[in-house]
Amino acid sequence: MTRIWNFSAGPAALPEEVLKQAQEELLDWQGAGCSVMEMSHRGKEFMSILAQAEADLRELMGIPEQYRVLFLQGGATQQFAQIPMNLLAGRSADYIVTGSWSKKAYKEAQRIGTVRCAASTEESGFTRLPTAEEIKLDPFAAYLHVCTNETIHGVEIPAQRIADTGVPLVADMSSHILSRPVPVEKFGVIYAGAQKNIGPSGVTLVIIHRDLLGMAPLNIPTVMDYAVMAENGSMLNTPPTYGIYIAGLVFQWLKRQGGLAGIDAVNAEKARILYECIDNSGGFYTNPVDPDCRSRMNVPFVLADGGLDAAFLADAKAAGMLGLKGHKSVGGMRASIYNAVSLDAVQALVGFMNDFAKRNG
Amino acid sequence: MTRIWNFSAGPAALPEEVLKQAQEELLDWQGAGCSVMEMSHRGKEFMSILAQAEADLRELMGIPEQYRVLFLQGGATQQFAQIPMNLLAGRSADYIVTGSWSKKAYKEAQRIGTVRCAASTEESGFTRLPTAEEIKLDPFAAYLHVCTNETIHGVEIPAQRIADTGVPLVADMSSHILSRPVPVEKFGVIYAGAQKNIGPSGVTLVIIHRDLLGMAPLNIPTVMDYAVMAENGSMLNTPPTYGIYIAGLVFQWLKRQGGLAGIDAVNAEKARILYECIDNSGGFYTNPVDPDCRSRMNVPFVLADGGLDAAFLADAKAAGMLGLKGHKSVGGMRASIYNAVSLDAVQALVGFMNDFAKRNG
Repeated sequence: MTRIWNFSAGPAALPEEVLKQAQEELLDWQGAGCSVMEMSHRGKEFMSILAQAEADLRELMGIPEQYRVLFLQGGATQQFAQIPMNLLAGRSADYIVTGSWSKKAYKEAQRIGTVRCAASTEESGFTRLPTAEEIKLDPFAAYLHVCTNETIHGVEIPAQRIADTGVPLVADMSSHILSRPVPVEKFGVIYAGAQKNIGPSGVTLVIIHRDLLGMAPLNIPTVMDYAVMAENGSMLNTPPTYGIYIAGLVFQWLKRQGGLAGIDAVNAEKARILYECIDNSGGFYTNPVDPDCRSRMNVPFVLADGGLDAAFLADAKAAGMLGLKGHKSVGGMRASIYNAVSLDAVQALVGFMNDFAKRNG
Repeated sequence: MTRIWNFSAGPAALPEEVLKQAQEELLDWQGAGCSVMEMSHRGKEFMSILAQAEADLRELMGIPEQYRVLFLQGGATQQFAQIPMNLLAGRSADYIVTGSWSKKAYKEAQRIGTVRCAASTEESGFTRLPTAEEIKLDPFAAYLHVCTNETIHGVEIPAQRIADTGVPLVADMSSHILSRPVPVEKFGVIYAGAQKNIGPSGVTLVIIHRDLLGMAPLNIPTVMDYAVMAENGSMLNTPPTYGIYIAGLVFQWLKRQGGLAGIDAVNAEKARILYECIDNSGGFYTNPVDPDCRSRMNVPFVLADGGLDAAFLADAKAAGMLGLKGHKSVGGMRASIYNAVSLDAVQALVGFMNDFAKRNG
């Protein structure tokens, strides 16, 4: 078995230790005599898996007691609707648009109710954050929505830019959650699809302040009412049990890496060497994003000579590196270097990129 | 490793062959160098897994070309809302209530729009089907909803009872789909949570006639619009890839069992010997359901002496049999004998039940 270097944007690489444990336990979880996939979600074995996953996540992120942790389905895309369905309560909400994903969230919310665009950097090609002056907030907004890491455009909002605006802050953290410490207490809602830094696709994590529960109208689907899901411990109906189990194994792996402080240091170094490679390539590779908000998880770059794209991807594949093709909306390349992508993998990528530039420059 | 006899109502037993193949491929799917969990959903590997799963399901069920097959999230409970959100179109729909699940579907639909109860057998304790005379249909209904197998009450609607009523028939088949041949062409929509006969929880199957697509209003979540999901081949957003992969392995396993005709014969024999054991126990065990509509998948039964319940469960556990406790709303016991529960397992259960009755009768 040869494992590839996996730079996929998601579903993405998982820690090999996690996969090996899942493999060992696949037919018989810790002597239960059956797979986690075959267990009643209301039995004591799965209840313990769910409780441990939540406890580990709370410890990793330092989630205060007044927040509820929900393991849901439907992905961030479903949250784009679920957020306004639960939180608008007949009012208006503000959206800051800094890339494809926050733009999608804004458009989806328009189907549900009244929302405003408080700022957009689309005219820049989504290569920077809006300045404080550009952001026009409604002080009476039901909430302010941001995407703290734009997977496609590679734009990340640094934690120090998260300011209190007086309204609940709702953040899509799908593609950088658990990659660094986050001040949870500054947010009303944090949500994330699992398939980047948490586990397999099909699990959606929602961390919500209890004061935001109970505002949903009675005509939305019961499974989409955060308050009902919170009351039922994410088990109004059958949750995606196997995905939650894998997420729990990832949380345990993260704790063994020294928690979010530990992984933060590795992620910083991975991003540093990759951006350095791009910036020092003499224009062979370029990344268009303002260095103040470059993503540490998703690094899009283009080759000066787009005619070399196919050769780059073919040579990368020959070197065992996959998932490097950029999103079709921006073209070029993208290396997603999530938690489970090791420093070794990024060093190998940098080595390959330097060599490719030398051979083709 | 000792595998238990698993009679859980869901998540439920999976074929051991499927689990073994999943275990082998867990870190490296067919030489791809990564797990199915780590693959881009838009890459050719996962696209081939999805296409094969759909093709095998179409072959197994004989799904006509004019039906679309969707792999969604959220479970049958989400469908309870999604069905009326998509199909009501300002009209009314009829519901036949034959157990807890169709009652839940009816109640959930009341949140969304106007629905009628066309018949209910609740007064019987959900132990029979309504007679033709008891069913009061609205000829102008947007659809008629039924649950063809009630997991909790053990009531199954035989295929010959499915009549054309002139309105689209919508069926929750969660707990008996793929257990026997079904005349798909009689239905407008067939839906099922995966965690009984399909695969792990977190996948929801929807089979919908194309004439029912495109009726949803524009203010529902995009992910809940069947037409959008059909246009995007279930990939508007990231689907639950690993669950779909396991479902695909289950479909291949079913083909090796001789398809639905093959598994039908095994299921008939399993149900026959278990009901025979109950009926021949001299009243030690009883099943209250009208023999004309007894479920072949979920067999609830009570012990005449409820004081023996704890001993029954403890002895069953000692004999390696789990998941036999009845649902709290009906009490007693329940054996769920889905496709992956072998005839051997049911024979073992019957042997245990006969022995327990002899020792305690």
